[in-house]
Parts: sequence; C-alpha cells; structure tokens
Amino acid sequence: MTTSISDMRELGRRLSNWGRWGAGDERGTTNLITPERVAAAAALIRTGTIFELGIPLDGDGPQPGGNRINPIRLMAENGQEQVLPGGFKWADDYVFMPLQAGSQYDSLSHVHYDDQLYNGHPGTGVTVKGADKCGIHTQAKGIAGRGVLLDVARTRGVEWLEAGTAITPDELDAVVAAQDVEVGPGDIVLIRTGWRAKFLADHDPAGFMAGEPGLSLSCATWLRERDVAVVGSDNWAVEVMPGENPGALFELHMVLIRDMGMTLAELLDFEELSAACAADGLYDFFYAGPPLQFTRGVGSPINPLAIR
Amino acid sequence: MTTSISDMRELGRRLSNWGRWGAGDERGTTNLITPERVAAAAALIRTGTIFELGIPLDGDGPQPGGNRINPIRLMAENGQEQVLPGGFKWADDYVFMPLQAGSQYDSLSHVHYDDQLYNGHPGTGVTVKGADKCGIHTQAKGIAGRGVLLDVARTRGVEWLEAGTAITPDELDAVVAAQDVEVGPGDIVLIRTGWRAKFLADHDPAGFMAGEPGLSLSCATWLRERDVAVVGSDNWAVEVMPGENPGALFELHMVLIRDMGMTLAELLDFEELSAACAADGLYDFFYAGPPLQFTRGVGSPINPLAIR
Amino acid sequence: MTTSISDMRELGRRLSNWGRWGAGDERGTTNLITPERVAAAAALIRTGTIFELGIPLDGDGPQPGGNRINPIRLMAENGQEQVLPGGFKWADDYVFMPLQAGSQYDSLSHVHYDDQLYNGHPGTGVTVKGADKCGIHTQAKGIAGRGVLLDVARTRGVEWLEAGTAITPDELDAVVAAQDVEVGPGDIVLIRTGWRAKFLADHDPAGFMAGEPGLSLSCATWLRERDVAVVGSDNWAVEVMPGENPGALFELHMVLIRDMGMTLAELLDFEELSAACAADGLYDFFYAGPPLQFTRGVGSPINPLAIR
Amino acid sequence: MTTSISDMRELGRRLSNWGRWGAGDERGTTNLITPERVAAAAALIRTGTIFELGIPLDGDGPQPGGNRINPIRLMAENGQEQVLPGGFKWADDYVFMPLQAGSQYDSLSHVHYDDQLYNGHPGTGVTVKGADKCGIHTQAKGIAGRGVLLDVARTRGVEWLEAGTAITPDELDAVVAAQDVEVGPGDIVLIRTGWRAKFLADHDPAGFMAGEPGLSLSCATWLRERDVAVVGSDNWAVEVMPGENPGALFELHMVLIRDMGMTLAELLDFEELSAACAADGLYDFFYAGPPLQFTRGVGSPINPLAIR
Repeated sequence: MTTSISDMRELGRRLSNWGRWGAGDERGTTNLITPERVAAAAALIRTGTIFELGIPLDGDGPQPGGNRINPIRLMAENGQEQVLPGGFKWADDYVFMPLQAGSQYDSLSHVHYDDQLYNGHPGTGVTVKGADKCGIHTQAKGIAGRGVLLDVARTRGVEWLEAGTAITPDELDAVVAAQDVEVGPGDIVLIRTGWRAKFLADHDPAGFMAGEPGLSLSCATWLRERDVAVVGSDNWAVEVMPGENPGALFELHMVLIRDMGMTLAELLDFEELSAACAADGLYDFFYAGPPLQFTRGVGSPINPLAIR
Repeated sequence: MTTSISDMRELGRRLSNWGRWGAGDERGTTNLITPERVAAAAALIRTGTIFELGIPLDGDGPQPGGNRINPIRLMAENGQEQVLPGGFKWADDYVFMPLQAGSQYDSLSHVHYDDQLYNGHPGTGVTVKGADKCGIHTQAKGIAGRGVLLDVARTRGVEWLEAGTAITPDELDAVVAAQDVEVGPGDIVLIRTGWRAKFLADHDPAGFMAGEPGLSLSCATWLRERDVAVVGSDNWAVEVMPGENPGALFELHMVLIRDMGMTLAELLDFEELSAACAADGLYDFFYAGPPLQFTRGVGSPINPLAIR
Repeated sequence: MTTSISDMRELGRRLSNWGRWGAGDERGTTNLITPERVAAAAALIRTGTIFELGIPLDGDGPQPGGNRINPIRLMAENGQEQVLPGGFKWADDYVFMPLQAGSQYDSLSHVHYDDQLYNGHPGTGVTVKGADKCGIHTQAKGIAGRGVLLDVARTRGVEWLEAGTAITPDELDAVVAAQDVEVGPGDIVLIRTGWRAKFLADHDPAGFMAGEPGLSLSCATWLRERDVAVVGSDNWAVEVMPGENPGALFELHMVLIRDMGMTLAELLDFEELSAACAADGLYDFFYAGPPLQFTRGVGSPINPLAIR
Repeated sequence: MTTSISDMRELGRRLSNWGRWGAGDERGTTNLITPERVAAAAALIRTGTIFELGIPLDGDGPQPGGNRINPIRLMAENGQEQVLPGGFKWADDYVFMPLQAGSQYDSLSHVHYDDQLYNGHPGTGVTVKGADKCGIHTQAKGIAGRGVLLDVARTRGVEWLEAGTAITPDELDAVVAAQDVEVGPGDIVLIRTGWRAKFLADHDPAGFMAGEPGLSLSCATWLRERDVAVVGSDNWAVEVMPGENPGALFELHMVLIRDMGMTLAELLDFEELSAACAADGLYDFFYAGPPLQFTRGVGSPINPLAIR
C-alpha cells in the first residue's frame, strides 16, 4: 500500500465509520464494546491476577520538555506544622500536567484534518475551551472489555524494535498466529514494541521521543477489518516514527481517530503483562481502563488494569 | 460508643492492622483483595453493563475554593492555526488540579496523628516532596474486585440524608438486610448518602462542603469486623460532618487510614448505579478503580467502573 | 452623554488613536511616555520615599473563584531533607495563577469588539497561543514616568464609594482642582475609589467582585483630551460596575483599550500613598511599573512603585 | 583566598550583617537603599531612556527542564466564540511557572546552611507553605535606586566569558577603573558576563545551564566593603559555575544571602543597556525593579527597568 497524502485520504474514506453509530455519535469504535462482549470478557479473569499498564507519573517520565512536560506534583500540605483539634494531620497535593504526559487516551478530538473531526463534527469546535464534540468525557464508561496483547517484540525475539521500524499487517498476523490468539470485534488490542523496555533500560527521554517503532499506516485496514475497539501501545504514538510518508505527519492517527473513530492508548507499560502471557501462553484478559472525566478534554491520563 | 479523643486512639489501637501484612507494608487493607477474590468477583459481571462512578472534572465541580479548587483544564493547542505537513491538526491540553479535587482515593499517607502513619511509618516522611511511604502509587494494581453498594438514602426512602446525619453500624446492618446482600473480606463497600444527588439538584458547592451526612466513628469497627478493603462514598469525607466529637477533626479518617490502613474513595457518583441496583435487587458488582500512578502522591483522581 | 451601544461605537471612533503612532503600532498611549517626559518626571522624586502599589499575591486575594482564582504558590524544595555538598540548602517555589489575578495590566489584546483590536489588528489574532499582536510584552520598557493620584474617595470625604457609583468627568475635574494638581500628556493617572480600603476592611472577595465604583464611560473623553498614557485604579475594572448601559458589558474597557489603545492597571493599592499625598498635598510622583515580559500574554501581574 | 568549606563559614562570619538592622530584620542589604540614596539616584535619569532588563517569559527560555521549567502560559479565553452583550470580547491567560524560571530575585529565604537563614531566622521556618521569614514580599518596596553596570565582558573585549571563568575582586576593580564609575553604599550592581549574549547567539538552554562565568567567592568581601545593596547578573547564579570549591555548592550564594543578607538578581539581559553605556561612557542609572508580592515566596520573576 502506498502512503502518499492522497492515499491517506482515500484510505480514510474507505475505512470510515462516519454515520455507523448515528449522525451525532461522538464515541466511535468504543461503541463496539457491547455489554455482551464485556460480559463474555469476564470469563478471561482466570486467576484474578492484576497488572497495571500505566507508567509512573513523576519527573522521571519520558517527556523531555517542549510541547509537553512530565507531570509536576507539588504538596500543598504535609502536616508537619499543623496544630489541629485531636492531633489530626493531613497532606494534600496539586498537579500540573499535560493530559497526555504519560499513559493516556487520545480522544477523538485530539487530531483531525480537512476541517472535520470524526463523524463530520466541525474542526472549529475545538476551541480555547476544549472540544465541543468528541471530548474524552464521552468515553467515561466505555473502555473495559476483552484485551489482547500482541507481543511483537517477543515474537521477533528482541528486547525492542528499533525506532523507525514499521509493523505491517503481515507481522500482526504472524504474531496472532504465533500467540495462538484471536482478535475480534470490540477488542482492545495492545501492541508491544518493546519501546517501554528501552526506556526502562536507558532512561533517555530525548531518545525515546525522537522516534519509535510502531504500526504502519496499512495496519488501519487490519484493525478495521477486525472491528477492533481500541488500539494501545507501549510507544508514544502507536504508529511508526518517523512516519512512512515524508510529506505528512501522523497519518495513522488521522485515519484511526478521524476516519475510523478509534480511541488510541499510548505510553503504556506491558513488561510484566508480557512475561505473564508468555509464561502460560494466554494473551487475552479482562481490560479495565477508565479515562478520567475531563469535560471537553482532548486526552486523559490512565492506568488501565489487565486482569487475567 | 463514646468518641472522645482518648477513645479515638483506643479504638485505633483495637482495630489496628499494623504488622498484619508485614513490617514494611504500605498498602493496608487492599491486601485483602486477593487474586482469588478478584477471580470470584468476575462472576458478578452478569450483563456487562458499565457504570462510571467518577464525577466530571471541570469548573462546575464541588470545590468552592480555599484548600482545594476545581480542576482548571487549559488548551495548549487546538489546531486552528496549525499548518503542518499532510494537513495534520492536533489539539492538546494541560490541567492544574488538586489530586483530591473530585472523585479520588485518599492514600494511606493522606492523614496521620501522633507522628506515625499507617504501620508505624514516620509522619516526618511526608515532606515537601510528597510521601516517602504509603504514596498512592503503592496501590497501582490493587483496587479491583467485588463492589457492594449500601444505599442508605434509598433504604431510608429519602433523596438524601441531611448534613450532620451520622450513619451507625445498626443502620448499615439494616441496609444490608434490606438489600439482601452480604459484605465480606476484600469487598469495596460504597455508601450512598444521597449527598451527590443533593449537589446535582442544587449545584451549591459551598453548601456541599459545609457539612455532610456520613459514617459515624463507630462504623470503623463494623468495617474492620468484615475486613472490608476499601470504603467509598458519594460525599467528600466518607464520615459525618460536623464530626461527632467537637474536640477533634476527622476521627474516622484517622482510625481507618492510619490505624486500619484503609484506602478511602470520596466524591463518587452512585446515581445511575443506585437505580440499576434497585431495579433488579442486585447490589454487588465488579469494581475496577485504578488510581493514577502519581509517585509519592497522597491522593489520586479516579473514575471507577462498576460492571454488573 | 448617552451610553447606548451605538454611542459606544461612535464614541470609540471619535476618540480613536488608530494610526496615530503608525499602522503597525501595538503600544498605543504608552507612546506618549516620551524620554523627555520620563526625564521631567524624575524631578518628582523629592525625598526618595517608595510606595508599592501591588497587592499581596496569595490565597487571601480578591478572586472568589470562577473565571479567575487567587494565585496558588507551592513549594518544590524547602531544604529540610537536602543533604548537599558543603551543607547547602535551597528552597524553590512554583506558581499557578491567572495573569490578571491581582494587581495587573490589561494589555491591548485583552478586549476587543467588531473583530478588531487596537489599531485594526485582527481579533482573530488572539488564539489559543495568545495574542499575535498587542501582547503585554510590547509594553516591556514603557511604563515609567509621571504618576498622578486622583483621590476621589478622599475628596468626597468617604472611606470608599459604593458599588455602582459612577465617577464623572466633572468629578475628576473637581478632584484635580481640590488637589491642586495637573493632569497632562503621558501621565499615568491613578483613580482611588476606596474599593481596596473596603476589601481591607471586610475581606469579602465575593462582595468585592460583585460590583464596584468606577469611571463612567464619559471619562474616556476626559482621558483622551489630556492624552493620559495609562489609567489605573484600586478596583478590578477601572470602570463602574454594573455598567451604565444595561445592554452592554465593559464599554469603557472597549473604548479605552480597543479604540484609544490605553493600557489599564487594575487591583492596585493606594492606601499608603493616599495618606502620604494628603499629608503634604503633593499628588504627583515618579511611577515605575514594569510588566513582566510574557510573550503574547494578554495581561501581566505587576507591583508598581510610586516614588515621591 | 582559599575556598574550603571551613573558609566559607569563616568568611560568612566575617562579612555577616546579622543584627545590623535589628534582631528581627528580614530585608538585609536592601536596607541600604535609603530614601536619600533613592532621591540622589533620581539625578541619574538624564535623557529618560528606558531599558528593560528582564528576559522574555515563554517556552524559549533558558530552562531545559529538571528542577525548573520555562513558564507555561495558557489561554483561558480568547474571545473567538464569545457572544456577549454589546459585542464585548475578552481574552485571559494563566501561567504555571517556577518563580525563578527567568529574570528573578532570590529572596533571603532561598538558601541557607547550618539551620539558619539570614539574621539567624530558623531554617525550619521554610516549610511546605513557604518562607515564614525573609519571604520575597518583605522586599516589596525596596528595590529601586542607583544602578551600576560593571561590564566585564566588554572590558575584556569578548562577547562572553567562558563557563567556569571566575571574576575576581581585582577584575571588578579594573572594570570600575576602566569605566570610570564608582560603586558605593546602597548601589544595585549589575555584572555583565556576556552569558546572556551567548544564549541569544546559540539558543542552547542545556549549555546555558551546564555552567557559567561568574563571581568568585572572594567577591563577597568586595561587595561587603562597598555596602552594595543588590548584586545582579546576566547568568543564572551570579557566581561562577562549576564553583571554585569542588567540595561545596553555591558558596557565594550562601555567604551573600545567608550571612550578608543580600538579594540576588539573576537571568537578566544587559545587552541594550551595555551598548548605551558604552556609547556615552556613563555606567550608572536609575534602577527600578520591584518584585511581585508573593507572600512567603522564596523568589519572584522581575523585569527591572534601567532609566538613564
């Protein structure tokens, strides 16, 4: 598949979910997470072991500054000087952070092109006040169900893929086959590139953000054909960086979010989960990853749980 | 039970969980959420219907200013003036907020007395940098399992209890009996006082924070005897305010958090969940409420899911 | 003078300074503060006594929440736990605040109407990134020169004027006469309504912001005829609130800032200065009030000095 | 002069100003800026030309992240979607920033050693709430008077001194002689190392912060002998970095701030001022640099004016 600018738009039209869940829909593919599928996913809780997929939110995160920074959490009270009735002492803290500083969802208002968001909502509705449509709060109750880890790095037998390595649909098929797992409608599909493992090994934020391995644009079709609900990754943009098309930026974002209405999860940590899945060969689990309800927000920090 | 200052300390000693999960433990009663209990709770996902228990995070929240404020979310990018390769447009936002501005967990470092946190960790460990021990990040993977709603307001047949109304152990027993539900070890128990319904009715932040109905100090024993893991409420402090003892502040907080090591969940919204539970008479469900992993944080915003 | 909407626009056209300092000018009436006038103003430093006109920046300020909040300053370091070479201990703090939380300048990009800022700069240039034109940084070196206090409250013999009291040009003339002071080109004119004295007396932020005494719309002409450079006040909007025209908002702001290009200074404290001026009957002084250089900012906190 | 740790303490004792302005004094050497000296300095306003010494506050500043960040200014309103009576449109912005992100004063509570601040105030008074004593607000009205630029880089005939270059008392004397200017009691002395010129040339924040040319520890005596009130510089720490004593950190800070009670001004821009002073050979001027009144703050952003 070629990836010129015109192709991206053509691809977007072909894979579009606009109108599929109604003219006013703001949730996109998370509509695929039906109660029936959630109920079925409960059976994937086998031993009750919980894995958290969020990364720590502190000054040692992957944001080297620039558009985003690492969270800055500061104490308002620590109790040390308080003299209160009954000896009560309390502590409190504040945070200043980009909503996409660490593990996070991209809402459907996060990216757009040609003046339209997902489902034709006007791009001008994203103002200084936030997203008039497709804010992250519209996903408040949606993101729990069947999760599937596609462990690309492990299947390749490497600690991590190098920056700029594009994962193709064929490779996703190969991982599915190697893991003996199915991907189907309403699934939350998590792609392990090992990029988080690299960060844990070298703690180099600038290197982490300078590029990354990730999905090729052609994976949009693969995800659409399977009616995946959410795609997540252990890198910062799901898609390969630098992108395949030197004349464009974040083409997979544009097709997935704006045309298909798919919520992305980024900057996740699958390291412990990966080891557990490899140990018993079971790569699906119950996923519970609620966003915070930031009204009109274009993203939200998350700490999803994978429960096996 | 009397509630003088000395009684609070005596009660704390009697109900203490210090040492129960090891000398260095920082997690307290969430240790009671064992894999077995999580796995058993999966059976409570019957139809797969999801209820979000968080409140919206925006300027219309319940914080009238003072120690805390409502979250302030501001846009860093909205795409309108961007001219980027391929027509890519993106939006991004920042937030400044108290970690306890809305629906949130109190970490075990949130309150203490007599120079010691839960399990004897030194109170001086809560510094300008945050909590050296018992930070909210220590709960990163713990808080999912069996949830039980105790709908006090509905059982009383009122929209909400008035501020200053203390809920006693006897009333909890009566609610349990009326709802025909059991409360047992490792449960996440959610107390509905209707205080959120009041806020939704009158949108009066100052009134909301001026007092509240809630648990009496004597409920600590009730929770301890059942080995409840987490207690949550739709008010802002779980316990009745003003407190029962005019010579003290937040005595239930001190006993639950510092002596028993119990994580509290506050400012939740049970309105939709309450209606659904009342409709079919089933008051237990699968609860998934991960905190964000704020390293050394003394609290975390949350949006827990109740899945029935 | 009537103050209907059409009159405001007519008044704006009549008093307009557009084009006066060049087609691209972004500074407006601070152009009137010429080096000659600054040099002449130096002679007003008689005894070298300094008065600060800013109000404290802390949680006890006049912002009750809503569009703006009081500054929230939090410590990042306090030195207590540091163990550094040579025994060095350091403290550091962060602030989160509206740039117009306390004593502040309104930049010429702060308000506009009919799609144009001062001097015809497009209103659309104020984006999510800030002000493309007329940002506060364009005033970086301008605001020092001759200051004149017009003590309306003292001339009336009251502690403060009541909210809703409009100060007319006639009253300004009367104050000028009573004080035996002149107002001329390039002056920084400070209007004392006593509203700050009221706040210091009752510490009621909500009452402080609910209305205020201030200039009538007709004072725009008075200021323009004298070629005043900057007008400041001890209230929060310079102009009377509620405004004289129930069908409009902040008409004086619109004429002064957008049509005349005048920088406003708000939320100042003239209490000590007022006493000193009254004591010796000298109401002019050297004023030095640099804004912070927030690039593209629409306002800046200030702490101007009056030196007598 | 040797600079071992014991020497620093010995030097501090020798140069100490503790008690000089009373046992409770919190202002230190700004007490030297008497009204008489302010009045005399007014004569230095010759032509009325104003130079601003602050650097722009935006994302392109010298803070590469870590302990401090560049200011993050975000818009709360930009007017574009507002529909208000009379056509009024307004814009507003918020900032999150370290109080020492750019041009700034170090308050006397910024550094200390051996458990005591300036004048013996207890170091433990710097808590999570800020500085109990010696907060920046105590300087609210003090910092205006005679300014003197010591242009070390120009006297050396270089664009800037290299990082690690220590400026000695002898070099200060040589600059004073070359410039034919005097330094005396109550002066605000500004040291130009050219480090700002380097930043403007290479825009390399990491390089800017990695080290700097600056005053040697021995300059403390030089400043004390002349009873200088404030010392400022175009680097980020006034003193040479790395410091002369490998076993210690910021020794000059400790002696100047803690022992002598001297307010420091950092991250200033003297480029235009330097050119003007060189052009007419006049290196003194009126300096007006009010801090913002952050109650209990340990620093404040500033934009001082030099008026010639």
